[in-house]
Formats: sequence, C-alpha cells, structure tokens
Amino acid sequence: MHIAIVTFDGFDEIDTFVALGLLNRLSALGWKAEIAAPAARVTSMNGVTVHAQQPLAGANAADVVLFGGGLYARAIAEGIGKGMGKRGAAMTGLALDPLRQTIGALGSGTLLLARLGLLGDMPACTDAATKPWVIEAGVRVLDEEPFHARGAIATAGGGAAATYLAAWVMLRHAGAQATAKALRAAAPVGEAKAWATHVIGVVEPFLDAPG
Amino acid sequence: MHIAIVTFDGFDEIDTFVALGLLNRLSALGWKAEIAAPAARVTSMNGVTVHAQQPLAGANAADVVLFGGGLYARAIAEGIGKGMGKRGAAMTGLALDPLRQTIGALGSGTLLLARLGLLGDMPACTDAATKPWVIEAGVRVLDEEPFHARGAIATAGGGAAATYLAAWVMLRHAGAQATAKALRAAAPVGEAKAWATHVIGVVEPFLDAPG
Repeated sequence: MHIAIVTFDGFDEIDTFVALGLLNRLSALGWKAEIAAPAARVTSMNGVTVHAQQPLAGANAADVVLFGGGLYARAIAEGIGKGMGKRGAAMTGLALDPLRQTIGALGSGTLLLARLGLLGDMPACTDAATKPWVIEAGVRVLDEEPFHARGAIATAGGGAAATYLAAWVMLRHAGAQATAKALRAAAPVGEAKAWATHVIGVVEPFLDAPG
Repeated sequence: MHIAIVTFDGFDEIDTFVALGLLNRLSALGWKAEIAAPAARVTSMNGVTVHAQQPLAGANAADVVLFGGGLYARAIAEGIGKGMGKRGAAMTGLALDPLRQTIGALGSGTLLLARLGLLGDMPACTDAATKPWVIEAGVRVLDEEPFHARGAIATAGGGAAATYLAAWVMLRHAGAQATAKALRAAAPVGEAKAWATHVIGVVEPFLDAPG
C-alpha cells in the first residue's frame, strides 16, 4: 500500500506529518506513506524545509493520495487547468483516479479536491477560512463536522482531524483490528482505548456508505 | 519566546511537528518554535529529511526546549558525558538550565532528560518501550499516565501527547486565554471546545504545582 502525502510550499506540518506518521505505523503490513511534492524541497508554513520522497507525479501511481492544508492552497487551486504562475502550476502532472485510488484532503486541501472535480456532488469538510472558496468551487460545506467520506473520497477539517483521515484510510484498507492497534500505539499513554474508540467512532459510519 | 525542538536522526515526525505546529500558532505573540539539530539535515524514522533551523547549541539560548522521541534515543543517551560514537556524541554542546528554561520531553525523549540529570527525583512519563531504560537511569516511571510536570520540567508519553506538552508550554508562558484559542484553532472542526477543554484539563493541574 503506497500512500502519497501531496505537499506544497507553505504546507501545514500537523496535517502532513500526523497523516504520514500514523499511516507508517502499518509498515509491517507493507504500507509506506511518503511526501510527494512538485519540487525536490518544499518549505512549510513555519519555515521547515523538507525533501520530497517522490515527485508529485508519484501520486498518480499511489494507492492512496492525501492533500493536507497550506498557506497557498488558493493560489494552487486557481492555477488548476490554467498553468498560470509558479504556484498555480504546482499541480501540473497530477492525474488522479477515484476508481482505483483512495483520495482524501484536510483543511484547505479540500479546495484542491473541489477544483480537481473529485468531489462531484458530495458535501465536504474544511476549515472556516477555506469554506467560502470551497463553496465558490461549487461544493456544499458541512458546518461543524470534522469528517465526511463517500466511497473512495474523504475530507476533514481542523489540524487534529488528520487523525480521522488516516484512520479512515487504515480502516478502508487494513481493517478494524490493525487500525485500532495502530491508533492505540499513537495515543497518549493511559488514554489508548478511549482515544482509538473515539477516532474510529467518527470515521466508521462513512466506510463505503452511500453518503 | 523561542522554542527549540531538539531533533535527531530517526526522530518521530508526530512528536516533533505536532509540538512545532501548535506552538507556532502563537506567532502573533512573538513565539517561534524551530527545529534544532546536531547536523544541517536530519532524517526521520520514516525517511523524511528535514533541514535544521538552528544548530543544537541554539537550544542553550532558547526559552523552551522540547525533546521528541526517536529511533536512536538509547544510543544518544548512552553517549551523554562519554563523547562516544557518532550518535552518542549527538548531544555534545547542549547545556540546558532549568532555572531559566522550560524543558519538556515526549516518549523516548524522556530518556534523554533522565540521562542529562534534569529530572532529579521527579517521576516521569514515557512510552512502554522506553520505560525500562528510564528506570535504569534512576527515574520512576508513571504507569498509564500521559503527562506529568513539576516546575519547569515536563514529560509525556504517546505520540498524541505532544499536544499536552505544547499546551503546557503555552499555559505556562502565554496564559489560559491564548492557549485555549490556539488549541481550538488546531482542533477537529466541530470538536474545538471539547478538545481544548480535555487537553487543558490534563495539563492544568501541573502548572507550577509542587509535584
């Protein structure tokens, strides 16, 4: 199971690394979550430079593709299909397929899914700042809900909801037992059972639900 | 307020970046959390290479110093005071002072605090795998507790407990209102109040408690 965490300049560290860290807890099952980026290096919203592990086009061949949030999501979304500007061209070469890939987004990453046309008529979660832009892209935003999925597509809102996105991917592809084990291992000590139960409770209703 | 997140090869991404991301949410108050490392680049436990924002010795001048967990904590701890080997010498040049600095650790980072002699006779939190080594270093480990602090020193266990460590730093140096605001902004959408209340509830009893 190859997971591409699509990562642009200005990325939110919590979104990217909570998803990457949790999903790699299934490495014993052959899972590998990696940073896919449009350049050899990208720099986070707080100035941390990281090296890409895959080119952006690596996401096209991944089993799972996740988009975190970031400072420049609006500029990147604007350029989709237009090839405009340096940031606007960031998504060039990305060709995703929800029939064979599991795809998710968090926060302002939801705007990218909307502009890629991947949300269809499904409602979506995002953060308050991104909400008007997602609506402008023709997608209904669910207020005060942290997670929503239909079939192979999921969106979430709020940095800590990266855990929900990762848990949904794990449940969908590794089953309940492996997911619970991975979550308990990442939970605060002494809170493992309650924490994993809460996370699974949020995402489980959306597993292959008609939405 | 300068915060150094001490980061070595093999670091746990969740520990480092949850703390860094949350603490930088107070950037409007002049807070700056940065990665301090013994080399220009360090590579995480899952193979992500990041650039240091400060040399390790930058931590000596920071207001707050946090240690996350990582694959090589035992090797690094072994070398403290001995100057042995490449990994063993990682801590060379680090000189912390709990009288003027706030210092915290998560997971196997607790072993480094223990071996640096910073825990004194206070009990500590860590993960199950690190527990025997912390005990061997002469420190009592609290079972099934995610967070403990006394004065300027805190320890936590479990990746998601990085949130507790960051919240404790914020409460200690920025007050309750700014902390609650930052936590709510990082919470899952729709769960902000409950999430922030839980996190603050875990760490608040330790604020300047005699321990």
